[in-house]
Amino acid sequence: MPKDAISFHKKLQGKIFVGSKIKKITKKNLQLIYTPGVAAVCKEIFNHPNMRYQLTSKENNVAIITDGTRILGLGNIGPDAALPVMEGKSVLYREYGNISAFPICLNTTDRIRIVETIKAISPVFGAINLEDIESPKVLEISYELEESLDIPIFHDDRHGTSVVVLAALLNSLIVVNKKISEIKIVIVGAGSAGYGIGKLLYFAGCKNIIVLDSKGTIYKGRKESMNKYKNEIAEFTNKYERGYLDNVIVGADVFIGVSGIKNLLKTKMIKKMNQNAIVFALTNPYPEINPTIAKNAGARIVATGSFSYANKVNNALVFPYIMRAILDLKIKKITLDILYAVAVAIANTIPTSKLGENNIIPEIGNKSLQKRITLALKK
Amino acid sequence: MPKDAISFHKKLQGKIFVGSKIKKITKKNLQLIYTPGVAAVCKEIFNHPNMRYQLTSKENNVAIITDGTRILGLGNIGPDAALPVMEGKSVLYREYGNISAFPICLNTTDRIRIVETIKAISPVFGAINLEDIESPKVLEISYELEESLDIPIFHDDRHGTSVVVLAALLNSLIVVNKKISEIKIVIVGAGSAGYGIGKLLYFAGCKNIIVLDSKGTIYKGRKESMNKYKNEIAEFTNKYERGYLDNVIVGADVFIGVSGIKNLLKTKMIKKMNQNAIVFALTNPYPEINPTIAKNAGARIVATGSFSYANKVNNALVFPYIMRAILDLKIKKITLDILYAVAVAIANTIPTSKLGENNIIPEIGNKSLQKRITLALKK
Repeated sequence: MPKDAISFHKKLQGKIFVGSKIKKITKKNLQLIYTPGVAAVCKEIFNHPNMRYQLTSKENNVAIITDGTRILGLGNIGPDAALPVMEGKSVLYREYGNISAFPICLNTTDRIRIVETIKAISPVFGAINLEDIESPKVLEISYELEESLDIPIFHDDRHGTSVVVLAALLNSLIVVNKKISEIKIVIVGAGSAGYGIGKLLYFAGCKNIIVLDSKGTIYKGRKESMNKYKNEIAEFTNKYERGYLDNVIVGADVFIGVSGIKNLLKTKMIKKMNQNAIVFALTNPYPEINPTIAKNAGARIVATGSFSYANKVNNALVFPYIMRAILDLKIKKITLDILYAVAVAIANTIPTSKLGENNIIPEIGNKSLQKRITLALKK
Repeated sequence: MPKDAISFHKKLQGKIFVGSKIKKITKKNLQLIYTPGVAAVCKEIFNHPNMRYQLTSKENNVAIITDGTRILGLGNIGPDAALPVMEGKSVLYREYGNISAFPICLNTTDRIRIVETIKAISPVFGAINLEDIESPKVLEISYELEESLDIPIFHDDRHGTSVVVLAALLNSLIVVNKKISEIKIVIVGAGSAGYGIGKLLYFAGCKNIIVLDSKGTIYKGRKESMNKYKNEIAEFTNKYERGYLDNVIVGADVFIGVSGIKNLLKTKMIKKMNQNAIVFALTNPYPEINPTIAKNAGARIVATGSFSYANKVNNALVFPYIMRAILDLKIKKITLDILYAVAVAIANTIPTSKLGENNIIPEIGNKSLQKRITLALKK
């Protein structure tokens, strides 16, 4: 597989390109596209700024922005090595969302410089997609940009992941016949994904959520290694439990792994979970547990973020479609209401009668996803 | 024409798009393009940074960067209104150079912030094209970036314009049977274009060059409104002449207008020029003189930067081809040698036997341009 991927990329020399919509340049259209005709188009936008949405590519342009600090499960590999992932996202944006997404891999990891750079390049984009930037820095960046820019800031690791997790969970709960308000969920990882998932699951009605980071359970009053966002998590999760995964997995109904750690979840831990355990081992490229091992340990439903297994809980199922809807509906801010509505729309793509242990989430490319998501956000 | 251009742009809603090179996404190639396979590609680049040129789109990506301060003849119209011009350039880059050029219109006009922003976004680009940024700021920016980045900085208003002017001049001089070392050239405009043209014409052997700005002739020791670049011009031009265009046009063989001022050149001025006068009125969208009026006043050869007249001295004839050659040949710095070689290659596209008053420069899209330019730079 690694060798296949490298030779595939070598053949392509980049998975994306910038294309022209003009089929054939003629003497006549050259005067419209370029000089002298284009001057009139510039003046029109200068006099009526909103015309930029009709006369340029801005509305359909998305910047996929990373600083390379938190790429897949690889960590801080820098902007050059991050580019193949960003191009991959661009391909999916084009294929599933009909969106022009251009990768911007930044040569800086400084929060203030990142914010300033994004503000500086924002005029040509209809939306920003923040990607694989380390937490909590990226949360600060996304909230700062939301305040200062008039285009939507989509933080895929937070927004996208939380939506696909909730969608998969809603369907899983139907399969195992449990209620979201009555289950115990353990989330391992308190970066962007863990933070976003925690917030959305709480919004969706889950009352017993435990979030862990490398120091163990997060709770109100913990002294070590906290930040603004972990404090926010502590407000609505985990009243009494202290310790590590091994302790809090006892009696859990759902495990959600966004830890970045391969093989973190052990057979003996799954055995301590409740009956009909649901295991979402979402770290890429290598999940917190191999799905077969998890099944053998007694998990009823197992999902990963990889395209190599059944139940692909990957935000690729979300980002092209939600972005298409956001751009079309001119939504300027991504709220929990919006994320919840999209999750329900994705979950509903599979009729209840067809739900099953290996069918909790639609396949990528499902034809009805876009229509359902856009409709859900129109309301 | 203005209405045609606006409705043409409305229909397109942007002249460019970001496309995917993958014809059809399948279950199998999704694992190569995206997760888990792409991780191997990232690791390969992390371990061997030069592989980014083979495994990503970087090598063929060019950023067309403006701050909107000096758009065509329109002046400082800002980043939003600048976008149609940048998209037009992108279309020409694609059509004639097979290059992915993405427009970046900056929400800042501050020199330091521009430099910092370009440095920050540089990892995904194989070259930078600076465009329509006010002078002398842009000259500082381009020299600073040349120092700090390892990719070529192409400053089209300076480099591109100087090349197309020299190419057209070399052929014009054959038509009128004059030698470059013996002629007097008057350049009106001391921004990026005037600076670049002055330097390249001097490099090409012209000994009598007069450059003017809005304060009149530039010369060594002038007190008013000078800067580092005008001082540089003063070093190799104009020893004795003082005054305005009306004064120095007397006895000139060549007028080159890059002034940004419509109808600056008057009939009576052309009458003061030498026999077989050459007039390049290059300001866009409206030239320094209408070509018919210039001809009637006695000019032998007249060229403009517009695609509406004969003799199109527009840098569109240069930038896609020179950029293709720079990228292919991995040239890291654009020197006067390179610019001179490209100008000669462009001039030679028209056989001497076919040169004429209305045929001094090849048409855009000329099929042999790329081959000739790349060959010239290979040497």
